[in-house]
Amino acid sequence: MTDHNNRAAIVVLSGDMDKVFAALIIATGCAAAGMDTVLFFTFWGLNAIKKGDPIKAQGFLGKMMGIMNRGGINRLNPSRFSFGGIGRILFNKMMRDKNVASLKELRQTVIDLDVHLLACKMSMDIMELSRDDLIPEVEDVVGVATFVKDAANSKIQLFI
Amino acid sequence: MTDHNNRAAIVVLSGDMDKVFAALIIATGCAAAGMDTVLFFTFWGLNAIKKGDPIKAQGFLGKMMGIMNRGGINRLNPSRFSFGGIGRILFNKMMRDKNVASLKELRQTVIDLDVHLLACKMSMDIMELSRDDLIPEVEDVVGVATFVKDAANSKIQLFI
Amino acid sequence: MTDHNNRAAIVVLSGDMDKVFAALIIATGCAAAGMDTVLFFTFWGLNAIKKGDPIKAQGFLGKMMGIMNRGGINRLNPSRFSFGGIGRILFNKMMRDKNVASLKELRQTVIDLDVHLLACKMSMDIMELSRDDLIPEVEDVVGVATFVKDAANSKIQLFI
Repeated sequence: MTDHNNRAAIVVLSGDMDKVFAALIIATGCAAAGMDTVLFFTFWGLNAIKKGDPIKAQGFLGKMMGIMNRGGINRLNPSRFSFGGIGRILFNKMMRDKNVASLKELRQTVIDLDVHLLACKMSMDIMELSRDDLIPEVEDVVGVATFVKDAANSKIQLFI
Repeated sequence: MTDHNNRAAIVVLSGDMDKVFAALIIATGCAAAGMDTVLFFTFWGLNAIKKGDPIKAQGFLGKMMGIMNRGGINRLNPSRFSFGGIGRILFNKMMRDKNVASLKELRQTVIDLDVHLLACKMSMDIMELSRDDLIPEVEDVVGVATFVKDAANSKIQLFI
Repeated sequence: MTDHNNRAAIVVLSGDMDKVFAALIIATGCAAAGMDTVLFFTFWGLNAIKKGDPIKAQGFLGKMMGIMNRGGINRLNPSRFSFGGIGRILFNKMMRDKNVASLKELRQTVIDLDVHLLACKMSMDIMELSRDDLIPEVEDVVGVATFVKDAANSKIQLFI
């Protein structure tokens, strides 16, 4: 049994590029420090673990989410200076210029570091997402009880 | 004396529908797991515990807060897809379609589960809210020292 | 050696006036309760520890950040009711009317209470900020590993 205290549990509700970036960076830091780390993606945060294919939702909101996120994690906009997508392109350029990893590369890094990716069942239902809409590396689709249990046994809990 | 570690303390600064929703869901999860759970409402989060009657504020910001939140918790807008109120209506419809509880029902659930609702004194002062503007289930109006003491003795602390 | 549990670690990613305000207030509360408290400023949060002089950035985003934040911490806008800067002025007026400290005064208070101010190296690189652009009270420019280590040894960890 693992030391149940050497864990980190991070909720990612935001779909803003900068906040998802922060969540992934903190997760790599936790994993690199030897912590068993879990990322719980909920609401807009689900965009960070979507395949990026067009989503086949029926409802209006589901359709909009699909349209606005065709490119998956690489299409996330920053919380400021969005400018209808230009902010994202600028940010990506600046990150490349400074040799900072892209969101997709960072996500791969957290996967390589065995960080657990979990998706929130209730928000998937509301947004009409199915398991197939998410990247295969997502370990499970879970409810709030799973998060609470993990968080209560973690040294670090954050809501992003 | 209760086990001072089996507690959760959650600050709710946001008044966005999706974030208040997440805060209430996590609070129900904590309470269902047997944790003594506290929600501290501050700034825009206070909208989630207002009665919803028109507020009799004198200042400009207080008046705006009153106008923009006449319906209380049922009038909160999501952090994305707000569309001047249409997003909220759509979200509410999708939540009903999926048999997800409304914010008001969820708030009643956390109250029924004995989650403590506290309001931040300083932000009430800034926003010209009085105790009477809040629902009667709010246990107390407190300062930051109360939150810090609770959070330091809690397994889970989140800022939403 | 200090009791490594009596600590608080707070990430400040947001540059919104109300959220920076909450971060500083919580930090004062933690410090007043005798906790060794650290504030990690990253992304937009860096605006709260900038000198406020025009920044000499070369890139487009760096220039915009410089233009939009000439006044440093006193120029932060609230997350709602921004109105192109009027919201900030109103908020400041309401805070003065209620004898609430300004952001700059609050920042001085956390400094006087020996709260540690740290800046995130990676976001400084992305935003083309140098150590000289930050107020001298900033203790160090650090990476995520420092934050994770501090947070794992803290009673309170928050992401704002």
